[in-house]
Amino acid sequence: MRRLTLLALCFGLLTTPALAQTAAQIQKLNDQWMAAFNKGDAAAVAAMYTVDAYVLPAGGEMVKGRPAIEALWKQRMAGATVEKITTLDVKPLGGNAAREIGTATLKTKAQPPQDVVVKYAVVWQKEGGQWKLLQDIWNMNKPMPMH
Amino acid sequence: MRRLTLLALCFGLLTTPALAQTAAQIQKLNDQWMAAFNKGDAAAVAAMYTVDAYVLPAGGEMVKGRPAIEALWKQRMAGATVEKITTLDVKPLGGNAAREIGTATLKTKAQPPQDVVVKYAVVWQKEGGQWKLLQDIWNMNKPMPMH
Repeated sequence: MRRLTLLALCFGLLTTPALAQTAAQIQKLNDQWMAAFNKGDAAAVAAMYTVDAYVLPAGGEMVKGRPAIEALWKQRMAGATVEKITTLDVKPLGGNAAREIGTATLKTKAQPPQDVVVKYAVVWQKEGGQWKLLQDIWNMNKPMPMH
Repeated sequence: MRRLTLLALCFGLLTTPALAQTAAQIQKLNDQWMAAFNKGDAAAVAAMYTVDAYVLPAGGEMVKGRPAIEALWKQRMAGATVEKITTLDVKPLGGNAAREIGTATLKTKAQPPQDVVVKYAVVWQKEGGQWKLLQDIWNMNKPMPMH
């Protein structure tokens, strides 16, 4: 029993820095994603996805691959800015993938602007040594207000 | 060049059966999920998730863990049946996880019943040798009709 506890502790000590490092890398990438989005740089946003990535947008058809993802984000950039991305949970899946759960706050460019909170679930995968988004999907807690 | 092509082919031959097996297992689990849902067995549905799983429902708050997941599905079962789950893409992530992209067709229990198509992105993870759902999120291409 005590030996198991000690083993569990050692395992914790070994794995926690790797998890913290992955979480820090993902936080940095989310900041980079948000900066590119708010600058209107759809190509830079699309480059953060794997070549076989899917994006499943709330209120739109799913898209696969960087050209389609770039077109999707270009269209969405016209409608909103991203104010905040908050990571709630990161879990490594083997050494080259990780899941992330979080929320994001958008401000629409409508008059008057509206705040929209979305929750998301993404998968990151290493491609050429870089963490890239493999799948990206979000939805809302409440249906969107009608205009 | 030719050697690389041969290598790529061999790699394909080696990995395809594992992928096909994973995809077949996931198809069977989706059938099982749908049967439990349509029978109203929320406990059986919840047992198909990992202990640390998240569900991010369209039009509802995210939940974590089996008791909360069971309560969510119990509530959703009152409103709809699942008619079809269609897997579009399965990709292994290391040996113990896989992503899946797909669509599902629901029929609401409203009068008159409405067909609702959702698209989803899930992650499966092996827990105790069994594939379980680690995260489950879906949304609609169009906003839900208002009643």
